Amino acid sequence: MKKEATTMKEKFIQLMSASVKGISQVVFIENIFSGLLILAGILIYSIPLGLIAIGSAITGTLVASFGGADKKVLSSGFFGFNSVLSGLAIYLFLEGPHKWIIALVCAGVTAIVTAALINITKRFDTSVLTFPYIILTWFFIGTSFRLSFIKPGANILPQNLINWERELGGSLDWHGLIRGIGQIFFLDEMLPAVLFLLAIFIGSFRYGIYAIIGSAIGWLSALFLGGEISLINLGLYNYNAVLTMIAVTSVLEVKHKNAWITGIFASFLSVQITASLDTFLLQYGLPVLTMPFVLSTWLIQNARKVFPNI
Amino acid sequence: MKKEATTMKEKFIQLMSASVKGISQVVFIENIFSGLLILAGILIYSIPLGLIAIGSAITGTLVASFGGADKKVLSSGFFGFNSVLSGLAIYLFLEGPHKWIIALVCAGVTAIVTAALINITKRFDTSVLTFPYIILTWFFIGTSFRLSFIKPGANILPQNLINWERELGGSLDWHGLIRGIGQIFFLDEMLPAVLFLLAIFIGSFRYGIYAIIGSAIGWLSALFLGGEISLINLGLYNYNAVLTMIAVTSVLEVKHKNAWITGIFASFLSVQITASLDTFLLQYGLPVLTMPFVLSTWLIQNARKVFPNI
Amino acid sequence: MKKEATTMKEKFIQLMSASVKGISQVVFIENIFSGLLILAGILIYSIPLGLIAIGSAITGTLVASFGGADKKVLSSGFFGFNSVLSGLAIYLFLEGPHKWIIALVCAGVTAIVTAALINITKRFDTSVLTFPYIILTWFFIGTSFRLSFIKPGANILPQNLINWERELGGSLDWHGLIRGIGQIFFLDEMLPAVLFLLAIFIGSFRYGIYAIIGSAIGWLSALFLGGEISLINLGLYNYNAVLTMIAVTSVLEVKHKNAWITGIFASFLSVQITASLDTFLLQYGLPVLTMPFVLSTWLIQNARKVFPNI
Repeated sequence: MKKEATTMKEKFIQLMSASVKGISQVVFIENIFSGLLILAGILIYSIPLGLIAIGSAITGTLVASFGGADKKVLSSGFFGFNSVLSGLAIYLFLEGPHKWIIALVCAGVTAIVTAALINITKRFDTSVLTFPYIILTWFFIGTSFRLSFIKPGANILPQNLINWERELGGSLDWHGLIRGIGQIFFLDEMLPAVLFLLAIFIGSFRYGIYAIIGSAIGWLSALFLGGEISLINLGLYNYNAVLTMIAVTSVLEVKHKNAWITGIFASFLSVQITASLDTFLLQYGLPVLTMPFVLSTWLIQNARKVFPNI
Repeated sequence: MKKEATTMKEKFIQLMSASVKGISQVVFIENIFSGLLILAGILIYSIPLGLIAIGSAITGTLVASFGGADKKVLSSGFFGFNSVLSGLAIYLFLEGPHKWIIALVCAGVTAIVTAALINITKRFDTSVLTFPYIILTWFFIGTSFRLSFIKPGANILPQNLINWERELGGSLDWHGLIRGIGQIFFLDEMLPAVLFLLAIFIGSFRYGIYAIIGSAIGWLSALFLGGEISLINLGLYNYNAVLTMIAVTSVLEVKHKNAWITGIFASFLSVQITASLDTFLLQYGLPVLTMPFVLSTWLIQNARKVFPNI
Repeated sequence: MKKEATTMKEKFIQLMSASVKGISQVVFIENIFSGLLILAGILIYSIPLGLIAIGSAITGTLVASFGGADKKVLSSGFFGFNSVLSGLAIYLFLEGPHKWIIALVCAGVTAIVTAALINITKRFDTSVLTFPYIILTWFFIGTSFRLSFIKPGANILPQNLINWERELGGSLDWHGLIRGIGQIFFLDEMLPAVLFLLAIFIGSFRYGIYAIIGSAIGWLSALFLGGEISLINLGLYNYNAVLTMIAVTSVLEVKHKNAWITGIFASFLSVQITASLDTFLLQYGLPVLTMPFVLSTWLIQNARKVFPNI
């Protein structure tokens, strides 16, 4: 057993370690180097965004610590990853003079939402995944239409399903394959995406391979099923498949050798769930975030209690 | 205990038996003759639709079998009935060149959704009912707006609640009383409906009586509460009442003699839930399917844990 | 142990006692005098509304009694408070010739919905709060668009988020601070609100203090975050904060001294949830009712299982 941290310095190091791991936990990895590499990728894209990422991880971890969370779970970064994503999402999807403060506050609230949802999902022997961050972000975007301290960003565009039309045509850009990794953290540039992939490989070679396979399956499925080319090029149809592939094959408890088949199926399904959620959220202008990953992974995680061979 | 099937022939017979029972399980009956009669009714209406029905039951049962489902539950047809309804719904509500393949694939996925939802509902000591098929169908219709491999059918019409108006007038047609049985399988013709009713009577005389009572209650309630005549004539206000009446009086665990009162109440309620869901789903053009039955039956099933006398 | 009531008179007194307590249970209090004072407040506002309130409490309690509910829980008024709110809401938000009958029937159905939701929430060691009444009222307003026996009231106005605009300006009226107490029972006049507050103080001095603090926090938060002045003046941004403050600090199981901090946080959050729900319900014209209180309180109640210090 680890000795309890007593000095301020020890406590600070523990906090930073848990927070950086919180960043890597977004991709199911508990590894400081992976966390730092992902952070570097975000900082390269935008320094304010990188500061929001680490600030959110720290805030979430601090709230969980004050809340009295289990110390071992806390030090694994578990109470940081939803906060990281919330902070980034609030910062990117909302507009207002002090939005960085709001992003950090939301990151803190996310830790509480995470705790609440743990009490729900554990009763079904399932995981919260990134659901806490999704529900908080959707709710908060809803708030922004009504309270003037914050405004919906330019990318939040409520539309009407009745007169909505699919965007046709466009030429395919294979960069979408790599952007699918970057979009996990909302980024569409190449270098950060490559760093994120590297971070996954550092954490686990196996996860890295599955990330690539997941991205390819999502990308090919979206093409095959006829998704809009502009969205495919941005990596918006495959980032959920990346997370789903890793989770279904490697993170969830699996008792057999055929999990990769289930992983391919679940990744394929995440593309259809993405399309469906886009339809249902259109009227509010809400982004699907990682909800397709959550639904597809929950489907398998729950089904495995009844179908042990999948 | 039954001997494990070993030869291919035995396995095939077991699969077909479970699949045909899967068709009869839609109306809570585990009986091969009932299943065949219902299948005949669907084939009379449309041969392709009948093939989808049996094909979906087989697909769902096969997926559950590969998944490692409990053999006894499997042989009862339990993993077939949601798949049958999914297959039919996808075939009837979507359009596309290879929609029969898509219907069968969805039937297979439905078995996995069923397994997942069993893990949820069993924690509340409740049943999945037809919820797996409903959620899959709604989700998949959502998909069809976004991915070009499949299109929403002509009967999927998103409308705006703000300028929507009730259809007034129309003359009542008592055939709606019988169509309420047929609409369980989406059919509005007389002969199939009569065959379905016969199938219920073959399975259980008591269920047959309750089916008739349920249909009448749904029909009369919709008239009394002022539902649109065109919908009443099509049997769209009473098919949920049929299922609710049978489930509440006979399928759920009941410890007293007054279940028929609760059944009448729940059937009456299913009509109001139908109207309400129609309002909330209008903007997506989604059909209510058997969700009113599911909600009304869940209400009673859950409430009985606290109110044992209902 | 209390002697079982045997004579008609004893039974009637028990029923009336439980029903009046049902009215006070809306504000977490089991006290006949509090219940009578609240009833007086409603009667002063409108005699028909007051009759609906007590009639709904009686109906809900009777249904629970026939249902075989636990006698001790029944006599505490627990099966009355959701019915009271349902009856009032149906009476105020719908229109039709016999709406008082419909309000009472809905009050009865609410008892069954309450029982069903107890079976759900108890699995998470949480409470139903006022969720049964909310879900029933929303569902029933949905029904009113489709079935002609009842119509949506003038205050149910579906609107489109796309061309919706915030109401700007208006001068602040401090009466909103007091109206926040009255709006728990849908009233916006001063005298009833003062009587309600008095009723809370009679039940528990501590609850009374927290009610005032909750109202102030909700009111100030809405101002600070930029809510619409017209809504703030009507008390529509703080009535949920009143309930949340009392519940989080005093009703839920708390194992530490800092619950008041959590209470302030949760009350503050209820304002943002109010805004968010307003956005999502806009298209159906549904009022948020006490859903912000329910969500904010559930958040804390669930989170406390994992974060014991909040």
